[in-house]
Amino acid sequence: MKVAGKHTRSIWVEPDGWSVGVIDQTLLPHRFATIRLETLNDVVRAIVSMQVRGAPLIGAAAAYGVCLALRADVSDESLDRAYAALLATRPTAINLKWALDEMLAAVRNRPRAERAGAAYRRAAEICDQDVAINQAIGRNGLALIETIAARKKHGEPVNVLTHCNAGWLATVDVGTALAPIYIAHDAGIPLHVWVDETRPRNQGAALTAWELGQHGVPHAVIADNAGGHLMQHGAVDIAIVGADRVAANGDAANKIGTYLKALAATDNRVPFYVALPSPTIDFTVADGVTGIPIEQRSGEEVATMSGITSDGRIETVRVVPNGSAVANYGFDVTPARLITGLITERGVVAASHEALAKAFPERCDAAK
Amino acid sequence: MKVAGKHTRSIWVEPDGWSVGVIDQTLLPHRFATIRLETLNDVVRAIVSMQVRGAPLIGAAAAYGVCLALRADVSDESLDRAYAALLATRPTAINLKWALDEMLAAVRNRPRAERAGAAYRRAAEICDQDVAINQAIGRNGLALIETIAARKKHGEPVNVLTHCNAGWLATVDVGTALAPIYIAHDAGIPLHVWVDETRPRNQGAALTAWELGQHGVPHAVIADNAGGHLMQHGAVDIAIVGADRVAANGDAANKIGTYLKALAATDNRVPFYVALPSPTIDFTVADGVTGIPIEQRSGEEVATMSGITSDGRIETVRVVPNGSAVANYGFDVTPARLITGLITERGVVAASHEALAKAFPERCDAAK
Repeated sequence: MKVAGKHTRSIWVEPDGWSVGVIDQTLLPHRFATIRLETLNDVVRAIVSMQVRGAPLIGAAAAYGVCLALRADVSDESLDRAYAALLATRPTAINLKWALDEMLAAVRNRPRAERAGAAYRRAAEICDQDVAINQAIGRNGLALIETIAARKKHGEPVNVLTHCNAGWLATVDVGTALAPIYIAHDAGIPLHVWVDETRPRNQGAALTAWELGQHGVPHAVIADNAGGHLMQHGAVDIAIVGADRVAANGDAANKIGTYLKALAATDNRVPFYVALPSPTIDFTVADGVTGIPIEQRSGEEVATMSGITSDGRIETVRVVPNGSAVANYGFDVTPARLITGLITERGVVAASHEALAKAFPERCDAAK
Repeated sequence: MKVAGKHTRSIWVEPDGWSVGVIDQTLLPHRFATIRLETLNDVVRAIVSMQVRGAPLIGAAAAYGVCLALRADVSDESLDRAYAALLATRPTAINLKWALDEMLAAVRNRPRAERAGAAYRRAAEICDQDVAINQAIGRNGLALIETIAARKKHGEPVNVLTHCNAGWLATVDVGTALAPIYIAHDAGIPLHVWVDETRPRNQGAALTAWELGQHGVPHAVIADNAGGHLMQHGAVDIAIVGADRVAANGDAANKIGTYLKALAATDNRVPFYVALPSPTIDFTVADGVTGIPIEQRSGEEVATMSGITSDGRIETVRVVPNGSAVANYGFDVTPARLITGLITERGVVAASHEALAKAFPERCDAAK
């Protein structure tokens, strides 16, 4: 997607042909800065610090982490070390494991001299595949938005609510939850997006609002607390969110707070969709609510807030009293019963084991 | 309640016998500072800027606003002007109108020379009555906590979730939702309170956490997004929140986001209680969801966050990109069907017109 009019992906190989460029997403929306990753440790650090975040982008970054590890040391031990170090960065996102397994399969049985080259080729394929998947998700989600738009008076916007950032910054390009929004907007359908701030890290206020603004999509940032009220008063036509992992039964782990919005959508008969590329599905977890591990992160993320001062300095302020404990859960799991449908690259499928197994039989079989 | 060990109310008449002292709640938890209100305009400004907030405290402050107006000008016009100016400060809290009507009744038919004195006496009564009501709410809510504690293993805490600040800072003293917590804690019942941060103004992180910390009640601040996950995993035994207005049918307006927590509580069979003094009941509104006006506040409250820097300066940072729109709804309405019970000074009553009319027949009749 575009940054100040220039097409940009969220991850790329630099002109030197081996180092990896990413956007430092912790500085957005205040500063657009890129960083160059040269080692496995650089990639691990970028994921852990959330300079790079979003389940599909984490997968792509991990793939390049393997490339950089093999460039330095082509041995089996190096490969295993890279796999373990990258897998440990974020426990909830399953694309990470999927991408690492893909990389392992692509290089493990090759002569050492060919490993690094094969790794870079496979990582590039993973990136291009992500973009193609997201374009398909966008087309499939577009049909849902078109149906709502057809019921509206001429010029009246379709009101979409989204949580966190499942836009192009969370993927290699195009996005998952935002893909239908971008495609509908480009097709001339009037849209308005309610952007949940998404505490504690404000990915909605910082990233989704920035993305939508750069692309010219009308939107308003709201406190995470506001979505229920808006749905109660008919101000939301459809909710579309991303996912960090979807279990075999259709339960979806996504940024903390997603479950609350799904409850409000259900209570007000607002359709609630989860957009995801198939690598996000984990057929080895039968029940998402009980089986998906939920990352706990530093309490500092809740106790403090970063932003820009009126004179342009990026500053972190503490909002919690000294001495108060803080708890910080990164994700929650929305039960399948609250999900109207899963928007995937193979169409909109029901949030159920039966529908997922039918749409992705090869993934289901591989997990057996 | 206590501030650094010294008993403090949230509003008082200064030793000069006429000016009014309050805590500047916008500076908490970082600084404890009091301000002296000398005119009607001072009171209006303190309420609008939320230096003074919380439905019962707004009522008490408005009562003293009438006193200060009459002290300057004892005429009917002055009284009417004060009534109108104070009523317009916050549209959702009904205690405000209740307190103003009480003041009007106390002074309107008196000789001019007696008006100011009568006003100060009635305002003091309103404050003392608020404290007595809150102590009764605390005793009635205590029984609910005791029942849960009896099911726990020895020493295992009762986990209470609360939203926003319905503590002593929101009232004249003791609090509403926090009253049962303080009384249970003082009675030696082990408690742990999950404190919703409560964006956009962080009354949970700033005020509730500070209050609980000053009183020594164990607690942890969480993002507003986290409560559903905690309830889903059995980490919440009971939710208790305050209210800004309760309609005749039991629907409860409270800080934005309350409705989402009520949905999660219902979905996970967690008892969800609303604590309120009877002046919060508005029998003239039949249906809360459609009938209670919801205040919209400045978008700056969502776009920015205030806190303290690591070197001790209070600073405001912007988190939303320039050019992004922001919407800021102050309250939402939780339908009565999601409320387990209303904790009032006359006992725990069902959230229904029948139960409210039976418990408060004189308020119900007066509204006819």
